[in-house]
Amino acid sequence: MTLTLYTAPTGNGRKPLVLIKLLNIPHEIHLFSWPTKEIKQDWYLKLNPQGLIPTLVDNELILPESNAILQYLAETYDKQGKYSYKLQNNPLEYWQQQKWLFYQATQFAGTLSRFHTYIGIKANDEKVWENILQSFENTYKVVDQVLGQNEWFVGDKFTIVDIAFGVGNHRRIEGVERFGLDKYFQDYDTKYPNVAKWYKKFLEVEGVKEALALK
Amino acid sequence: MTLTLYTAPTGNGRKPLVLIKLLNIPHEIHLFSWPTKEIKQDWYLKLNPQGLIPTLVDNELILPESNAILQYLAETYDKQGKYSYKLQNNPLEYWQQQKWLFYQATQFAGTLSRFHTYIGIKANDEKVWENILQSFENTYKVVDQVLGQNEWFVGDKFTIVDIAFGVGNHRRIEGVERFGLDKYFQDYDTKYPNVAKWYKKFLEVEGVKEALALK
Repeated sequence: MTLTLYTAPTGNGRKPLVLIKLLNIPHEIHLFSWPTKEIKQDWYLKLNPQGLIPTLVDNELILPESNAILQYLAETYDKQGKYSYKLQNNPLEYWQQQKWLFYQATQFAGTLSRFHTYIGIKANDEKVWENILQSFENTYKVVDQVLGQNEWFVGDKFTIVDIAFGVGNHRRIEGVERFGLDKYFQDYDTKYPNVAKWYKKFLEVEGVKEALALK
Repeated sequence: MTLTLYTAPTGNGRKPLVLIKLLNIPHEIHLFSWPTKEIKQDWYLKLNPQGLIPTLVDNELILPESNAILQYLAETYDKQGKYSYKLQNNPLEYWQQQKWLFYQATQFAGTLSRFHTYIGIKANDEKVWENILQSFENTYKVVDQVLGQNEWFVGDKFTIVDIAFGVGNHRRIEGVERFGLDKYFQDYDTKYPNVAKWYKKFLEVEGVKEALALK
C-alpha cells in the first residue's frame, strides 16, 4: 500500500511534503482546499480525531501532527540520517533535534496560529495583537542567534528541524503579504539577518519550492 | 554529576518531576519562584536561549522543552518501558506516544498558555476569550473520546503522555480556581466524564501528588 498524506497548503501541511520529496518516497496526496470543513467530517475524524491536518497513513500506522510525521519519515525512510540525527549514533544532536521540533511546534507555529486566529475571528484588542507581535520577535531573536552560530539548526547539516522552521517562516511571510501586514514585519531582514540568509539557502534545497508551491 | 532540573511550579515545569520521582532518578532541583525574571538572565539563557522553563542538565546534555525532557528521561532511565513505549519493541504505540506529546504541547498546553496570557496582559476582547474557551472544549472533547476507549492514552499502561496531559489538566484547574473563572468550566466533569475519571486515577499515581505540590 502506498503511503498517503492528507494535507492542505498551510505551514504544517507542507512540512512532510518537503521530506517526502527529498527522500523520494512513493506517495499519494489527498489535498484539501483551504480552509475546509471536510476535516471535521466523520471519515476524516476517524483518521485524525483532532480534525487537524496533516495526517499520514502508512500501512497500519495513522499519524497526525506534522512534526511527529517528520520524525516518523526520518526514522523509517532516512535510516542513513541524510536529513536527520539518530539517537543511537548522535545522541546529543538527536535531543537538540527533538527540542527544536517542540520549540517550533509550540512557540513558532503556535504564534503563527494565534496570528491567523486573531485575523480569522476579526479580533480587535491592542494588547493581544502586541503580544502576538512580541512573541514573533522573541522566537525570531532566538532563531537568529542560533543561525548566527551554525549554518543549519542542528549539527552540520540540513535536517527536519530546518524543514519545520523553513516552512513555518514561509507561512508567516505568506500570511503577512496576504493580509497586508508588512508594516509590522518590514525590518525583520535587517533585525534578523541570519534568518534571512538561512531562509534563502532553505529555498534552494531540493523539493522545497515544489512543496511550497502546493495550492 | 547529578542530573539537575531547572524548573518552576507551572504545568510544564512539573511534568519532568513526576517521571523523575516515578523512576527514582537521583537529581537536584533548581526551583524558580513563579513568575520570575531570573529566566531571562544571561546565566540561564546560556542553558535555555528561549528563556523558558523547564531545562534539564544531564552531563553534557542541556535540554529545554518539557515534552522532549519526558522523552529523554524515558529513553535514558526507563529502558524497560515501564512508563513509555519504545520504537524498537512497539512502533505503533511509540508513534501514538509521539503524536500525543505534540498534541499536548500545541493544542492543550498551547490553549492553557493563551488562557494565562489573556489574563496576564489584561486583555479584553470577547472574540478572543470565546476562542480560547472553544479551544479548551475542542481538546477536552478529543481527550474525553480517547479516554472513553482506553484506560490510559496509549496502549494499556500509564505513560509519559498521561503525565503530560495530567499535569496540564491540573494546571488548568489551578488557573480556573485562582482567577475565579469556575463559571466557564463548571460543567466539565459532566461533559467530559472520562477525563474526570482518568484524572482521579492519575492523582493516585506514585509521585504525582508530590510533584503537583511543588510551590
